[in-house]
Amino acid sequence: MQSVDFSPSLRAADLTARVKDFIDTEIAPAEEGYHRDLAEARRTGDPWQPLPLIEELKTKARERGLWNLFLPHEHAGAYAARFGTDGGEGLTNLDYAPIAELTGRSAIAPLVLNCNAPDTGNMEVLLRYGTEAQRKEWLEPLLDGRIRSAFTMTEPDVASSDATNMEATAVVDGDEVLINGRKWWSTGVGHPDCTIFVFMGLTDPDADRHHRHSMVLVPRDTPGVKIERLLNTMGVYDEPLGHGEVSFTDVRVPLTNVISGPGEAFAIAQGRLGPGRVHHCMRLIGLAEMSLELACKRGLARTAFGKPLANLGGNRERIADARIAINMARLLVLDAAWKLDVGGPINALSEVSQIKVAVPAMAQQVIDFAMQIHGGGGLSDDFPLSGAWTAARALRLADGPDEVHRGVVARLELGRYGASR
Amino acid sequence: MQSVDFSPSLRAADLTARVKDFIDTEIAPAEEGYHRDLAEARRTGDPWQPLPLIEELKTKARERGLWNLFLPHEHAGAYAARFGTDGGEGLTNLDYAPIAELTGRSAIAPLVLNCNAPDTGNMEVLLRYGTEAQRKEWLEPLLDGRIRSAFTMTEPDVASSDATNMEATAVVDGDEVLINGRKWWSTGVGHPDCTIFVFMGLTDPDADRHHRHSMVLVPRDTPGVKIERLLNTMGVYDEPLGHGEVSFTDVRVPLTNVISGPGEAFAIAQGRLGPGRVHHCMRLIGLAEMSLELACKRGLARTAFGKPLANLGGNRERIADARIAINMARLLVLDAAWKLDVGGPINALSEVSQIKVAVPAMAQQVIDFAMQIHGGGGLSDDFPLSGAWTAARALRLADGPDEVHRGVVARLELGRYGASR
Amino acid sequence: MQSVDFSPSLRAADLTARVKDFIDTEIAPAEEGYHRDLAEARRTGDPWQPLPLIEELKTKARERGLWNLFLPHEHAGAYAARFGTDGGEGLTNLDYAPIAELTGRSAIAPLVLNCNAPDTGNMEVLLRYGTEAQRKEWLEPLLDGRIRSAFTMTEPDVASSDATNMEATAVVDGDEVLINGRKWWSTGVGHPDCTIFVFMGLTDPDADRHHRHSMVLVPRDTPGVKIERLLNTMGVYDEPLGHGEVSFTDVRVPLTNVISGPGEAFAIAQGRLGPGRVHHCMRLIGLAEMSLELACKRGLARTAFGKPLANLGGNRERIADARIAINMARLLVLDAAWKLDVGGPINALSEVSQIKVAVPAMAQQVIDFAMQIHGGGGLSDDFPLSGAWTAARALRLADGPDEVHRGVVARLELGRYGASR
Amino acid sequence: MQSVDFSPSLRAADLTARVKDFIDTEIAPAEEGYHRDLAEARRTGDPWQPLPLIEELKTKARERGLWNLFLPHEHAGAYAARFGTDGGEGLTNLDYAPIAELTGRSAIAPLVLNCNAPDTGNMEVLLRYGTEAQRKEWLEPLLDGRIRSAFTMTEPDVASSDATNMEATAVVDGDEVLINGRKWWSTGVGHPDCTIFVFMGLTDPDADRHHRHSMVLVPRDTPGVKIERLLNTMGVYDEPLGHGEVSFTDVRVPLTNVISGPGEAFAIAQGRLGPGRVHHCMRLIGLAEMSLELACKRGLARTAFGKPLANLGGNRERIADARIAINMARLLVLDAAWKLDVGGPINALSEVSQIKVAVPAMAQQVIDFAMQIHGGGGLSDDFPLSGAWTAARALRLADGPDEVHRGVVARLELGRYGASR
Repeated sequence: MQSVDFSPSLRAADLTARVKDFIDTEIAPAEEGYHRDLAEARRTGDPWQPLPLIEELKTKARERGLWNLFLPHEHAGAYAARFGTDGGEGLTNLDYAPIAELTGRSAIAPLVLNCNAPDTGNMEVLLRYGTEAQRKEWLEPLLDGRIRSAFTMTEPDVASSDATNMEATAVVDGDEVLINGRKWWSTGVGHPDCTIFVFMGLTDPDADRHHRHSMVLVPRDTPGVKIERLLNTMGVYDEPLGHGEVSFTDVRVPLTNVISGPGEAFAIAQGRLGPGRVHHCMRLIGLAEMSLELACKRGLARTAFGKPLANLGGNRERIADARIAINMARLLVLDAAWKLDVGGPINALSEVSQIKVAVPAMAQQVIDFAMQIHGGGGLSDDFPLSGAWTAARALRLADGPDEVHRGVVARLELGRYGASR
Repeated sequence: MQSVDFSPSLRAADLTARVKDFIDTEIAPAEEGYHRDLAEARRTGDPWQPLPLIEELKTKARERGLWNLFLPHEHAGAYAARFGTDGGEGLTNLDYAPIAELTGRSAIAPLVLNCNAPDTGNMEVLLRYGTEAQRKEWLEPLLDGRIRSAFTMTEPDVASSDATNMEATAVVDGDEVLINGRKWWSTGVGHPDCTIFVFMGLTDPDADRHHRHSMVLVPRDTPGVKIERLLNTMGVYDEPLGHGEVSFTDVRVPLTNVISGPGEAFAIAQGRLGPGRVHHCMRLIGLAEMSLELACKRGLARTAFGKPLANLGGNRERIADARIAINMARLLVLDAAWKLDVGGPINALSEVSQIKVAVPAMAQQVIDFAMQIHGGGGLSDDFPLSGAWTAARALRLADGPDEVHRGVVARLELGRYGASR
Repeated sequence: MQSVDFSPSLRAADLTARVKDFIDTEIAPAEEGYHRDLAEARRTGDPWQPLPLIEELKTKARERGLWNLFLPHEHAGAYAARFGTDGGEGLTNLDYAPIAELTGRSAIAPLVLNCNAPDTGNMEVLLRYGTEAQRKEWLEPLLDGRIRSAFTMTEPDVASSDATNMEATAVVDGDEVLINGRKWWSTGVGHPDCTIFVFMGLTDPDADRHHRHSMVLVPRDTPGVKIERLLNTMGVYDEPLGHGEVSFTDVRVPLTNVISGPGEAFAIAQGRLGPGRVHHCMRLIGLAEMSLELACKRGLARTAFGKPLANLGGNRERIADARIAINMARLLVLDAAWKLDVGGPINALSEVSQIKVAVPAMAQQVIDFAMQIHGGGGLSDDFPLSGAWTAARALRLADGPDEVHRGVVARLELGRYGASR
Repeated sequence: MQSVDFSPSLRAADLTARVKDFIDTEIAPAEEGYHRDLAEARRTGDPWQPLPLIEELKTKARERGLWNLFLPHEHAGAYAARFGTDGGEGLTNLDYAPIAELTGRSAIAPLVLNCNAPDTGNMEVLLRYGTEAQRKEWLEPLLDGRIRSAFTMTEPDVASSDATNMEATAVVDGDEVLINGRKWWSTGVGHPDCTIFVFMGLTDPDADRHHRHSMVLVPRDTPGVKIERLLNTMGVYDEPLGHGEVSFTDVRVPLTNVISGPGEAFAIAQGRLGPGRVHHCMRLIGLAEMSLELACKRGLARTAFGKPLANLGGNRERIADARIAINMARLLVLDAAWKLDVGGPINALSEVSQIKVAVPAMAQQVIDFAMQIHGGGGLSDDFPLSGAWTAARALRLADGPDEVHRGVVARLELGRYGASR
């Protein structure tokens, strides 16, 4: 008689348990050392040179079949079997969600499991829209974890929340594409293995609003590509991936590097962003859970005015509110993932925007409370909280600011009552 | 491969559709007239005398099998078949939830479908804990819609958020129970058919904290029972049920009127309140949905400064936030209902308290916005918004104030890390 | 050396003390009886017939010179001496503010001191813009407390937040004005002494946007004036003043009843609303103070879970937040009053809109907390809290909704950086 | 007739104008270069070595008499004339407040004007409680800008929000004091000129709760003093002052280094923190004003979806809310400063705690909005916003966490109704 059922599928439950075990036994014990080594590299050397630990853990993860788990069921094709979990056929968004939540608790787990942004999104784009040749050249090494990629879309000189503001150009010139412009917040360009950029630029200003732009594969070493600098968010550089400002000056690549044909960038972007946002949001939920856990433990371990901190003032209310907020946010993401699974991106347009608004705001709030109950230490890097806060804050802008997503939700809501836009 | 599934069961989907159709075709068209007649009765006559429309609609609802749908699957026994939907066997909490949401949109639908508080809770108590004789005498006429009931627990002279503060007494005296005390916010006592009160009082002050109180069935016409006055919430009397202040002076009833034995009141209360809170919350979600719908329609229909109100300032953001908040709240309630279904009240202790905190606050916020976009009219009774707001506000106190429920959630959360209380 | 000085002037301090004493000794002791009598009149008789107590208290107030204290220094002229405090010359807005706060704590004090809206605003209009004849006929009896007045501006059929939407007409026809239209939320029309309406309507649709409307004095008994009904806000009718819906059908008054000439309504309205909003806000601050006081007392007097309610959970934090919020709001209003005093309405345009946004929101929050700590009783009329909440909520719409005032503040802020609108 | 007067004294108005001019003409033009040089020093050299610009600007500020303006009127004595503005006699807290606001807009102005925390607080302590010899040795060089100081109170191993938790010891041993313990968040210890620490430790565990601790002057080069590391807040090290973790191992200083006698630390701390909190809060208000200004400018300069960002969605409402919040916060601080001036710290106990709660929360909110409207750039160090946010966030913990200050406000509020604590 029952149909609605909030329990995970057997396969997802099994994989989630295996990922949890791997994080608990392999990643977590190494993480403190990793951060110490990274801090040391920041002071004295080159934090952009990846620490060897990551490659060691990648090998272990792959041996256990915990690799490329993000690969979506409906587009995985043969790749899931070749590069994913043993016998894999790809997971639904709903099945992958709890795995993303687990990896979100760790700063390095997504990288170790080859499930980190923006590589996952770029791989998905190649999977869904790439030619055989493009897949061969870039998708396979990405799935293999041999190279990394970046997505260059946001621009420093215009409000990029409105993608039609984009000024960079990708002009078709015979059998080549001529690329010019400046991008920033291009995540991943700090990594030495990042050899391929997915570039988005204006191709035909006279086409209709959503067919003017193209997505083009631009190898990093193409002449005219220059990484101008690496940016920080609230003081955090997110090594070893990083976020860069990149200039493109008279860059030329073959026309075959265009993905899905000139003018198709918006169609691709729309398909690309649904699952990616689910992943981002589930990882933030992982961070929020970790923060609440730390807050409870600290609240019980430290004493002031004769009581554990947890029992002072409104702290218990804040713990309750955090629990409620996390649970609501997780359910909203799972529901969005389910709608993506059963009806595709168009079916989940409002839901994906809803989670993009709700989850970072929730996480920011929960993490802020956890910082507060940790006192001064909570703001320092003695705890993973300030980094977690920064991740949540950044996601209120990355992949579209809150305001744009609220606009989408409102438009669809008012559309039910006849509003045309 | 899929297991988590947010779609309703076929049976629930069918019943929900039938309830929706009944509301749309029978209740909604009559509702404006009902409110006009009630307002007239307030001015000139006796608003506590139920309007005949309700009985007419009750008959129709029952003919269609849309009757006592709240009856819980696990306790329905033969009653579901006799008094519920044709061939009925009771619904799960999860299946009933969307029906409760629909009835919440209407001020009279719960009454018409014999699914209103506090009768549902009282019926459930009799179903789960009543003797054969008690069921025969009170449960059957309640299921039949012939009588109504009240639950008298809260007291005016003590902070009743702490139930152990209760001062009213139910002393066992031979084969009788002697009852004294004063209760208020006893919902339902205004109705002329309300002939039976479930009374909660102190029986044995020396027993342990959770075995001191008893629940006793007290017929309204027992000597010593007096309805002192009817209370209003924010000016609203909620006729024809109402909320009363009731005094009990040397009231005597047979010992057989005690439910589940002396000292069992807390155990009963705990079991009683889970489903009831799910119902309350789902009805509030219905009110919030109705309010958002009215807000969107008004926002598109009226113009100021050359634009539809919906397009002014932050109104679209508020519409988006309302949509997100409603969706999150609904999912949280469905999850609590599911946990109640699969593991019973103890399994869902935190979840039920979570929804009691989250849903009224959400509804209050959404309805407040809808009032605001309606201008002055939104505060008057030209629209159902001010009544909806009052219902949401009252539920931040009824069935336990927010603060107590936050306390439960925090206690269980901290308990995961070893806190004893 | 000191110049900024937050202490009141000696005269204001003296008057404030005298008002406080009058409220404490004359009004407060009578207030409970007043409310009981009013409740009784609602049930059994005519609540619109003013209770004799008010007239008795008015006489006493006047004898003590606590009468028409609102009369503004700069426009009081000889009236302050004749109708105000003995030897009076009118108070500044800043000096009157603490008196308004005190009267706000009582439901009847403003009426008793002849300082209630909308009469104060209407008197001020006549003082500043009325002809000798208009003042003789309407201002003097108003100052004398013999008649009352209403302000009819808001309309039911359009979004009146945009005053240019106004559809009612006041057409000059020879030496008469022809008036047609429908108004609502006309405060005061329920009172039997309310004999004069200040009507606002469209005179010349071809004039520029701010010179199309006129303000016209319309005696209530003019043929064609009809009070259609009295409206409630959240169930509250605010007897004996009330808020009415009024229709005007081919109503004719002499051209001499126009205030300050045809087309001058906007200029008058702008001058009228500054002090009125200061009064409203200070009265709400009085309500918030009263609510916080009740919350503290209840929080100390009642016990749950072994502690005074004040010491449970986040209650102390909420008390602190309420104290902080009230203090900030009061300072903002005093600053606005000071700016009105030193530079007039244009000087305080942003400040007056700022308080209209900040104060009702603050009061709503503080009162909501006070209701919550009172439990069920807090929502009933056993305490003055639900009425206070309704007053605060209504003021988020009355005299311009929050959204419009935020628009004014933002426009002036952006204007500092060159934005034209 | 007017007494309350929000305009500044002539002297304060003059000094504020001179400080504004100095910042506009000398500091602001140099600031971008300063930050560039500091960023360069972070990458390649030693950011703790102060850049020469600071000393150059200090000289200019002193020449203009804009030096040590914080010196409080009532304790300035001859020092104001010798080390402050020409002919200076010290300012009231109220007069200094707008100057602090101005300096808060700049990352270096407080240092340049010799008005930065914690030196101001330490100088004030020496001024009020120091012996002649202590003043000679440490106060004069501090006033002269030749040395810097730190305040070591917070400890890593206990919840320092409860000062009685303090575990570090300052034991009187003959004519010496023996010091042991570990402190952190000791602001200023990163600076090479920081030669004197004010240390707070437990002297007599058997004394009453507020006479157990002493404040002791500990020169940095005393054997046993070790700066263990420098801490960051949200990635920011606040060079060149910094926040350090400092260990004290069997450190011995003469008994004459105790300030105001053993056991007097709490009395000193209470007096020290009032003005310091006013300064902190006014500087944050300066940051909030600067952020709102940047938000408005960016909102007008950038365009999306065919409109300036300022005109999209709820941005104008957020600008209005920011303006209102800043104004209310400023008035609250001015009122606290005035109460400090007229009645001293005990008179302003609640007010000082009120501003410590209200202002950082306000600033955090306003700055967050400014970051959001700047897009990705707002989170980077291309703008001063992320640094400003961190300053506001840190002040929700520094000088007592929000929760402790809310506790003070609530205690005093409830005390009006008889609560003993």
